[in-house]
Amino acid sequence: MSEPALGDIPAPLFRAAMHQVADLIADYLEHVGEYPVLPKIAPGDVRAQLPEKPPEQGEPLDALLGDYRRLIEPNVTHWNHPGFLAYFAITGSGPGILGEALAAGLNVNAMLWKTGPAPTELEETVTDWLRQMMGLPPQFRGHINDTASISSLLAIAAARHRVRDGDVRTRGMAGRVDLPPLTVYASEHAHSSIDKAVITLGLGHENLRKVPVDAAFRMNVAALDTAIAADRRTGRLPIAVVATAGTTSTTSVDPLVDVAKIARREKLWLHVDAAYAGAAAICPEYRQLMTGLEEADSIVVNPHKWLFTPVDCSVLLLREPDALKAAFALTPEYLKTSEGAGGATNLMDYGPQLGRRFRALKLWFVIRAFGVDGLRERIRAHCALAREFAQWVEKEPGFELCAPLPFSTVCFRAVPPGTPEEQDAFNERLLGSVNGEGPVFLSHTRLRDRFVLRLAIGNVRTAREHVAKAWELITRAARTLRAT
Amino acid sequence: MSEPALGDIPAPLFRAAMHQVADLIADYLEHVGEYPVLPKIAPGDVRAQLPEKPPEQGEPLDALLGDYRRLIEPNVTHWNHPGFLAYFAITGSGPGILGEALAAGLNVNAMLWKTGPAPTELEETVTDWLRQMMGLPPQFRGHINDTASISSLLAIAAARHRVRDGDVRTRGMAGRVDLPPLTVYASEHAHSSIDKAVITLGLGHENLRKVPVDAAFRMNVAALDTAIAADRRTGRLPIAVVATAGTTSTTSVDPLVDVAKIARREKLWLHVDAAYAGAAAICPEYRQLMTGLEEADSIVVNPHKWLFTPVDCSVLLLREPDALKAAFALTPEYLKTSEGAGGATNLMDYGPQLGRRFRALKLWFVIRAFGVDGLRERIRAHCALAREFAQWVEKEPGFELCAPLPFSTVCFRAVPPGTPEEQDAFNERLLGSVNGEGPVFLSHTRLRDRFVLRLAIGNVRTAREHVAKAWELITRAARTLRAT
Repeated sequence: MSEPALGDIPAPLFRAAMHQVADLIADYLEHVGEYPVLPKIAPGDVRAQLPEKPPEQGEPLDALLGDYRRLIEPNVTHWNHPGFLAYFAITGSGPGILGEALAAGLNVNAMLWKTGPAPTELEETVTDWLRQMMGLPPQFRGHINDTASISSLLAIAAARHRVRDGDVRTRGMAGRVDLPPLTVYASEHAHSSIDKAVITLGLGHENLRKVPVDAAFRMNVAALDTAIAADRRTGRLPIAVVATAGTTSTTSVDPLVDVAKIARREKLWLHVDAAYAGAAAICPEYRQLMTGLEEADSIVVNPHKWLFTPVDCSVLLLREPDALKAAFALTPEYLKTSEGAGGATNLMDYGPQLGRRFRALKLWFVIRAFGVDGLRERIRAHCALAREFAQWVEKEPGFELCAPLPFSTVCFRAVPPGTPEEQDAFNERLLGSVNGEGPVFLSHTRLRDRFVLRLAIGNVRTAREHVAKAWELITRAARTLRAT
Repeated sequence: MSEPALGDIPAPLFRAAMHQVADLIADYLEHVGEYPVLPKIAPGDVRAQLPEKPPEQGEPLDALLGDYRRLIEPNVTHWNHPGFLAYFAITGSGPGILGEALAAGLNVNAMLWKTGPAPTELEETVTDWLRQMMGLPPQFRGHINDTASISSLLAIAAARHRVRDGDVRTRGMAGRVDLPPLTVYASEHAHSSIDKAVITLGLGHENLRKVPVDAAFRMNVAALDTAIAADRRTGRLPIAVVATAGTTSTTSVDPLVDVAKIARREKLWLHVDAAYAGAAAICPEYRQLMTGLEEADSIVVNPHKWLFTPVDCSVLLLREPDALKAAFALTPEYLKTSEGAGGATNLMDYGPQLGRRFRALKLWFVIRAFGVDGLRERIRAHCALAREFAQWVEKEPGFELCAPLPFSTVCFRAVPPGTPEEQDAFNERLLGSVNGEGPVFLSHTRLRDRFVLRLAIGNVRTAREHVAKAWELITRAARTLRAT
């Protein structure tokens, strides 16, 4: 094959650069722990070092890789750092990175079966593997999205599509005398993506009912019941309940069995946000904490959260995937294929996004490289580390745990003498001080209106020593702060 | 640093496998042209070769890479093939692949400035480069999304947010007596993603007015005017016009200046879908075809379409980016940061998706490796090839061009003797026959209700020989079909 007159960069240059990239990534993963998790820079510092104008002439790949090494790598927040213990810790694991790189080389857009046969069927296979791993019945079918935000939005859109025989799709919601406000229910600890989904779908933020939680931060089912009844009484139309298995603040699990009963009685779509804790469902002992999960109409679990898959990879498991097709499928002439007419899966039919990256490849690599047993072991190790950390907190005078610990995320705080506000300020300073050190990064939340620290274990590279280091820095900083 | 007890796959194994991946990708790019563009398989063939159950024990990386090579690579549709001339041809170019691999290694989620300082600022910089390259005024700010589907959805959501001082966000649209149906306008040649955006946002598919086009498939502005007036008369509330610069079927450009005048007069949000042709705007002679682009409120251009960047990378350029923040920003306690309070950009504020991959890196690499001049040369070469192909069609008896050719996509068909329906059937068989050969892949559309073939040049590896091969196969297949 002759070279095109113009074309890509010359093949030998690409090959050599790709080998450099292989070493850059391998070096990074071996040494990422030596960086401070949070780069010590201020907003604008990076941009100031970037040219304001794009280069007219092409630059050598060495210059690009050099600038990457000098300007980008040191100035990211190191999510792949074993000391990353904030938010939900995630991992771009080795097998996942291999898969992502190969997918970039293929550059498939699997919008149709015809435009990505292996990607489409691998997605069906690997999400079915995940279903089995989570102990869910065979009717659940998986669909990979970029984010849980979109997965949950799709679920609520499917719920909306049940209204008035699906006519919201055609007629919309505005200017209709026949359509009451449509309400959605989630606990006050549900993730902000549920708020954003309700806003995006045009349901209105005020029609998302934030149901109060019990002492363990789980949805109060009686309050859910009351809220639904009140809405029906006032002429509103409840359409969906979003239960959470692993809330963002405390990883609490809503009482799924009881919520499912109400959802079924009230004919509401039950979506379960298990973006984080769904991964733990691959261990029977943690799956037990999510009994009722199998009653859901849809479940989101993010392999890019706690299954060591590089972002982005969010799996929406659906009891009736056709509900999504009913809400979204639309085939313009230029995308019609005989395979689609013949019943092959066209992934574009299941949501608003036409373009689809090949995300199943990295998940396939991760599951195969670690094996289900290997994944379980790692989840269990994270949970065990979290329990050990929680014991240190419990034993330490002047500290307290702030929530039960079902999985691998610990909520705790220092309780120095003083008013609640002074205690909050103390913990906020404590967090800033610890995160300023470099080796670890923790985040915070508010529980019962008090500022609380969160230590979340989820990076596959996190070992006991990193958690111990976090505790050492926390207790030392607390001592220093108390002395000043 | 000691190894964690469990952890990632061992570092030396990863390094070796990543070098194998470097060669797998480099080999693929060198030899992709030897594959048939469309794999010769039927739905279910790949899945039948995949185990139904996930492996309990981890498997060696060699097994994964071997299966990738054996089962995945040959069974994808080869979007990176120089003979890929269907839909809009795209490219995972070398520099883009390097960037994507590095991004996978970093695995940053740049939802907040704090969680991705360099990714956030590189996104601001590189989208500003693109703005400059497209000759747009400095007030436009860029925001990278996964797909044009989402970029356009965000634009229409921003338009919706202008209604009633933004109260749709809070109150939603259902059950309100004060809210008339909200209407959106696009030409009948607008992309299906606009339909899906309107459906998703709850505006209702029937409230998307498909404005007729002129003989060159451009929005009929008088008809737009009439449609808006009719809707106002009947109590509807027009909110947005979506003009297209480079429609999917024929790459026609709506009359942007005239559409912009109406949009301004009617106080409608003007969104321009330039997902494909926006790339050509980096050449002054093609930018001229899009005069009026600078009048838009928002513009989507996909570097993953015709700027040689691996999927996914869609840039939404906004005149008032704060309009998106107003529609979407929402910061739960666990995501509050002092940098956000201080005015740093938190990318999560601009849409429904919280998680954000580091997509700016690959676009930075592409622009720098090719240089703006190099990108312009490649766009021009594609357009010149398309014009040459169009000349062959024009000169060939029994063939005709079906639409003007502003950029690099040619609409044409065979016109054998017979009824229009027979001609359609002939062209459909012709397409199947050509695509069945292997070296090239074309797609189709319908224009004025007739089946039309599309040849779209956009892959950086496509050279004159591939286009010539397509023409050879088309004319040969037409002769064979005529003879049977």
